[in-house]
Order: sequence, then structure tokens, then C-alpha cells
Amino acid sequence: MGNGFLYQQISEDIHAQIAAGTLKPGDKLPSLRGLSRQRGISLTTVSQAYAQLEAQGYIQVRPQSGYYVAARPTTLATPEMATLKASPALVGHDALIEQVTSALRQPGLVPLGSTILDASLLPNKALQRLIQQSSRQPEAYTYAPAAGHEALRRQIAQYSLDSRRPLLAEDVAITNGCMEALHLSLRLLAQPGDVIAVESPCFYGVLQAIQSLGLRTLEIPASPQTGLNLDALREALSQYPITAVVTVPSFQNPLGCCMPLEHKQQLLTLAAQHDFQIIEDDIYGEFYFGNPPPTLYSLDTQDRVMLCSSFSKTVAPGFRVGWALPGRQRARFLQLKRMTSLSTATLPQQVLAAYLGSGAYARYLRRLRQRLAETQQQALPLLAEVMPSGTRISQPEGGFVLWIALPASLTGLAFYEAALAEGIGVAPGALFSTSPAYDHCVRLSLNMAWSPRLEAALHTLGRIAHQQLT
Amino acid sequence: MGNGFLYQQISEDIHAQIAAGTLKPGDKLPSLRGLSRQRGISLTTVSQAYAQLEAQGYIQVRPQSGYYVAARPTTLATPEMATLKASPALVGHDALIEQVTSALRQPGLVPLGSTILDASLLPNKALQRLIQQSSRQPEAYTYAPAAGHEALRRQIAQYSLDSRRPLLAEDVAITNGCMEALHLSLRLLAQPGDVIAVESPCFYGVLQAIQSLGLRTLEIPASPQTGLNLDALREALSQYPITAVVTVPSFQNPLGCCMPLEHKQQLLTLAAQHDFQIIEDDIYGEFYFGNPPPTLYSLDTQDRVMLCSSFSKTVAPGFRVGWALPGRQRARFLQLKRMTSLSTATLPQQVLAAYLGSGAYARYLRRLRQRLAETQQQALPLLAEVMPSGTRISQPEGGFVLWIALPASLTGLAFYEAALAEGIGVAPGALFSTSPAYDHCVRLSLNMAWSPRLEAALHTLGRIAHQQLT
Repeated sequence: MGNGFLYQQISEDIHAQIAAGTLKPGDKLPSLRGLSRQRGISLTTVSQAYAQLEAQGYIQVRPQSGYYVAARPTTLATPEMATLKASPALVGHDALIEQVTSALRQPGLVPLGSTILDASLLPNKALQRLIQQSSRQPEAYTYAPAAGHEALRRQIAQYSLDSRRPLLAEDVAITNGCMEALHLSLRLLAQPGDVIAVESPCFYGVLQAIQSLGLRTLEIPASPQTGLNLDALREALSQYPITAVVTVPSFQNPLGCCMPLEHKQQLLTLAAQHDFQIIEDDIYGEFYFGNPPPTLYSLDTQDRVMLCSSFSKTVAPGFRVGWALPGRQRARFLQLKRMTSLSTATLPQQVLAAYLGSGAYARYLRRLRQRLAETQQQALPLLAEVMPSGTRISQPEGGFVLWIALPASLTGLAFYEAALAEGIGVAPGALFSTSPAYDHCVRLSLNMAWSPRLEAALHTLGRIAHQQLT
Repeated sequence: MGNGFLYQQISEDIHAQIAAGTLKPGDKLPSLRGLSRQRGISLTTVSQAYAQLEAQGYIQVRPQSGYYVAARPTTLATPEMATLKASPALVGHDALIEQVTSALRQPGLVPLGSTILDASLLPNKALQRLIQQSSRQPEAYTYAPAAGHEALRRQIAQYSLDSRRPLLAEDVAITNGCMEALHLSLRLLAQPGDVIAVESPCFYGVLQAIQSLGLRTLEIPASPQTGLNLDALREALSQYPITAVVTVPSFQNPLGCCMPLEHKQQLLTLAAQHDFQIIEDDIYGEFYFGNPPPTLYSLDTQDRVMLCSSFSKTVAPGFRVGWALPGRQRARFLQLKRMTSLSTATLPQQVLAAYLGSGAYARYLRRLRQRLAETQQQALPLLAEVMPSGTRISQPEGGFVLWIALPASLTGLAFYEAALAEGIGVAPGALFSTSPAYDHCVRLSLNMAWSPRLEAALHTLGRIAHQQLT
């Protein structure tokens, strides 16, 4: 699928000059127009190259003045375009994912490599009471409809109440977690060989699902602040026949980024102009620290968005209850669901319907958001203190993952291995792309209340990073 | 994929002569050798044609004498070769399945159109106690491994103890019901365009799953006594590149047939000779009235069989817990499972592990088999009495479905509609093939204890059949 974009080449050239010391911190870069004339390339291309370098933390924009080489960047992204066709390299990527995720499941670890919330944050006691209630209802033992338990679908519709696009129970299709919702959406929208665009870096499960269906992945750069880079998407659209875009607009895994409202609107406009579909993974959408971000689905007036979500992150990973809003494709979605797994287990659906219906879900989420925000407020300054100079850390406005770029001489895999040896799980950046773009990164999950144990773990991570520098 | 087999043409010619009255009940047919010479066709082809007519109940074999037109056949099958490519006709078949299965889910029906056991037979009380126990364990709320809850895999391995091929917990992969096990097995073994052979008639969910994956279906005639017709399979193998055979060797749905041991061995030999894989759907394997039939998996010495099963028929439909024995393909199976639905809900797995572990499962199944056999013993003579002459009914040695061929002037759909209007569900034969071969058939589930309500329902079905004759 080509050797990447022209803007990436420009961006890499400038990065090489910074790395070689030709360009030093504080040096001013050529203006957009100046570089455009100098290299004979379009203003758009220069602007994209600078946007990428800025997202990577290598340069900074000073309003009314221009672009400068950054002194010590605080945020990052290292977007890269990659393909995901079956290849020996990909087998290696799959094997790495299997090896790392299996190691991270070891009991006893400080589980900062996992996107499951710590059990102490979850409402297990409330669920236990509701399980006992549901177990007395005969329907707990019988098949739920393929679309899902009706009371749960009604509760999801009511809870998601959004004046932009009100939901009905009939709009909701229950699935075996978000993964099945994504899997069915991909199967519904794309045929083998079709190109699916994703944010880069991207949750490895999505990369693997796309590959396993014989689809081709196009990784589009994403910024740790604003998510999917729309300029890069526009350029990709001019080159490739993109069937669908899979995006996590709110608190993306692993970046933690949130797409601004105007970007969401632009993405919907692009979808209409270029006739592609959007699969919106909203699994982290409830984890906002400020105002609830609107979903693409709620802004969509043309039925181009299929939303996928789940209770796995918020309430109960073990329940495996997710849902999709498949829009006008509902009948075909349900047919595929029947042919894939018939229906979803009944009892967990009953329990969740009762939990949402009692109002406890909304109250629990309010408290959960506060606690996760508190953890992040404690962790960020500590990490800034303990991690070596040259480390860059995202500052997400929701979710519970931090994206960390280690100083250039470190690798995420070596850092992950050393952390594991000290009983701490972190997720190496290499999991999140089939390209080597994030080999120096790690994802750190702040998935628990602030505690001495967590504080000690962050100190240990700082020590490890310093040790690996020397 | 051609217009069917030569043997089918012969079989249809003879059937046409019987239907026209040219051949009358009791008339002797030409000998195998005679017809072979007369038509200039192979003995195998004649033998297959006669086997099909016999399976359909149109002719009978008298040992040491020859083949005769049947007077009043008691068993039947109307196998037919069909293709399942996406086509307007197929959309019609899908629509029919959706319409009928949705109507059969109406509450209040005598549910003889469903393959779910009546709740009064199921061990819901015992499960309720175990649910309450499991709900107190923290792990009920966390993800199970993709392969499944370890204790349940161990219990399945222990329960399935078969000296021919002992199982280990590691051999078992838990799935969201048998449907997901079948779905993943098909994805693992076949690429879009590949030919998958199935028994005809066949559970419609399997026909749809094959189609939804872009695979091609080849319906191979099956007999209500001995299942898959191996001569027909041999002929198909000589014509088509068959990648895999999906078979239900024990108490097939909808025929109720059980493949004899020597047929199982021949099928395995064929698989080795022609290099195809076998997906064994063993979901009804526990429902034997006599001796437990050995699975193909237990007889397989070459790792050609992937077994799929479930607790949905035996214990708890609503739990959605099934399993696969993927053999040497285990690692790839689990990877596909992760990409499709990550893992299966934890609590139902814990409950089933405890239920099997306590020995209650084995005791419950012994009693269940007795009760289902009793129901069949009551129902068969009653049906023989109340159904009009010309009706043919299978006599399975396990399972809980009867396959009924109505007299030639009736159709399964009209019978189903009239039964529905009287509050009784039955499944029209048209669901079980994309060909019209079973349009005069219905599947009747004896999925409850014998009761005045069931007795009255069978009387009503008899009355409906008589009414539709006139």
C-alpha cells in the first residue's frame, strides 16, 4: 500500500535534523509558506508534517510567531501509516500480543498494563444482590432474544437519552461485549480485501479483528489531544478506497485522546462526501472528567455511524455484555448475531437492566469518574517528577490510560520486561501498531484508586526508566 | 454447482412412477444389477438411488428378495442436493426462517416447534443455588480467559472421559454456545468460496452460518436411521473440492438419526483419503436412550475432527455456554475466539463447573434421558393412531425430535400455520434446506414430560392433518 505519505517524509527529515542536533531546542523552523516554496510542495503537506511533529512533541507552535523545536515536550504521538496484511511480520505481532497479554494476566501484579478497573472500584456487592434476585426468575435460564433482553435494551436507550438523537429500545442490539459488536459491525460493512482506517496507535484487538476478517488496515495518525488526524484521513481518502473508519472518539485506547466537537462534525461531513461508514467504539465514553462528550452517533443525521459499547469497562468485565446501535442495518446485524452466537447470556443482562433501572448505575458512575480523576491528578505530577528528562506523557481529560513516550534510548518492551520483573504490569507501545512507530512508548493504566501501593509502583517505574538510561 | 447427481435423477424417475400409480404398493422393482444393465449406469448409482428412495420411505427392502414399493412407510427422508449461494431465493429462505422462528417464540404456545427443553425438565433449582454461591466469588465479575474458566474445562474433560481418546482441560475451549463453536470452526477451516458439505435436511442455523461466511453449502442426503449417506458423500467428493463436512452424528436435528459406528469409521477413512476436515456437532450426544454413541472425535486418530457442543440443550439455554475440542488447531481457535468475543461470561461457567463437579449433572442426565424416552414411547403410537394414512414418522433412538412426512397433498407450512392458529408450535420442513425437498415435512419436538396437555396437542395435530387432507 505504498511507502507512506509525502508529509511523513518531510516530518521524518525534520525529525532527523533534530535528532542529529542540526536543529536545536528553541530553533525556529521555516514558515509553512517558506518550506512549501523551498521544497515545491503544497501548503497542506507542510501543515500536516508540522502537525505530526507537534503531535509527536518534537516542535511547538508559538502563536503569532511560528514553529520552534521543542525544549521538553509534554505530550506526544508518533503516528505512522501501516498495513496489516497477513505476513511473517504480522505473525510476529500476533505472537507478541499473545505473549505480553498472557504475561500481564499473572496474578499479583500491580495491573497497570490492563484496561480492566480494579475490583475495589467495581459495584460487585450491588451486582451480587441483583444476581440473587435474577436467579429466582425462570427467564434467567432461557434464551434471550438475539437482539437482547428487552428490559436492558430499554434501560440503555433511556440512559443514553440524548436530545440530539433519542434512542428507542429497538435501536439497541445486545452483544457478547464490545468485541462482538465491533466484529459484527466489521462483517456487516466490509468484504474481504476492503480497506478499514483506524487511529494509530490503536487497540490491538481491533487490529487483529480486522486482519482476521481478511480486511486491510490503514493506520491514520492520531494526536494524544485531538485524536484522529483529519488531514491525514483526507489524504488517505484521496489514495485508498476506504470502506469504513473505526474510531474511538472519546478517551481512546491507548492515547486517552478525545476528538473535539468540530472534528466530529468534520468527520461526519467527510463520511458523506467520500461515502464511507464509521464504526464508533464508545467503550470509554462514560469516563469523562468534565462534560460528557457527544457521540458521533448522536451527531449523525445520515445513518453513517454504528456505535459499539459495553459494560465491561464500567461495571462488570466478566458479564460480557455489550451493545451496538446498528442503525438502519439492524435486521442484518441481528441476523449475523444469530449466526455467530445466537444470543447473549440472559442472567447478566437481567442484572444490568435492574442495576440501570434502579438509578444505581448513574450514581456509581459519578463517583467512579471522580475517583479516576483523583488518581490521575495524583499520578501525573509524580510521574513528571520520577521519570527521566525526555519522557513525554499525555494528559487525557477522561478514561484511565496514560500514553508515555520514553526517552529516545529506551524501548517500551525493555521497560515492560523490567517492570514485570518488579511485579508491575505496563503495556508496551509495540502492541498498538504493526509498525515500529511506538516501540519507545508504553501505556500505563490508572485503573485504581490512589493508594500507597500505586504510588510506590510509579516510583519503581521511575527508577527503572533511570536505570535503563544508563 | 450443477443440477444434482445422476442417482437423484433415477430416484426421481422411480418416485414419479410411484406417484403416478405406474408402480403400485407391493410392486417389485428391478434388481440393482438389472436396472444397472437396463440403464447403462453403475451399480453404485442404482444402489444410491434405491437407498434414497428407501430413506424417503417410498420403497422397502425385503431381505433375500429385493426392493418393493412401500405400502405405508414408517420412516422417511427426502434428501436433496442443493447449493446455498447468496441469491434471491436464499433471501426468501432467510426471511422464512426469521418469520417462523419469531412466530414460534410467542409465549403460551405448546412449544413443539422448539428444540429447547421445557423448563420443568431443567435443573433450574439446583442452578439457582449454585448461582448464589458463585455470585459471592470475586472472580465471577472478572474476565474469564479466552479458553474458558479452568475448572469448567477440567470438568468437561473429566466427564467426557472416553478410553479411546482421553481429554485434558487444555483440549477444551469454551464458547458462547455451540453456535459460536461452529462459527469459529468454520472460520478456522474454510476460506470464502470453499465448499462445506452438510447433512440434508440440516439445522437452518448451520446453513445460515455457512452462507454468512461466504462459503458454499453442499447438501448431502441423510437417512432418518443412519444419517449422512456415505455413498452420496463419495460421489460428491468425486465432483467437488469439499473442505469440511459438518455433521451431527448423534441424534441429528431435524432427523433424530444416529450414525452407526461403522459409518463413523468409514467417514473418518474418507476424510483421510480425500483430505477434508470434519466439524462434529455433538450438541444432542447426551440424549441417548440406549448406549452412549461414541463421538467421531473419540474415534479420530488423525486430528481431522473438531467437536462442538454445548450445555444449551441439556442444562441451561440462557447460559450460552458451549465448547469446542479444536485439536491441534487450538491456538488459532483461541485467537479467533478473542477477536470475535474475547471470552465467555464467567458466572455461568463457574455454575456449570460446580454442577458437573458435584456429580449432579450425571444424575440429572440419567433421569432426563428416561423421561424423554417415556415421552417418545407414549407419543409414537398416539401419532400413528391420529395422523392420517400416508404419514411417515421417524423413530429415533435418542434426542427429542421427530421428523414427520405428511401425506403428499399436505405442506409443512400450511400444517405449521394451522397448528399455530390452535396454539401449537411445530417447525415446517422448509426451514431445513434451501431446496423444496422437505416442503411436505415437519419437525415435532418432544421436549417435555408426557402430560395431558401434550397428549391433547398431538390429537389436535392429527385433527389438523385430517382437515387439511379434505
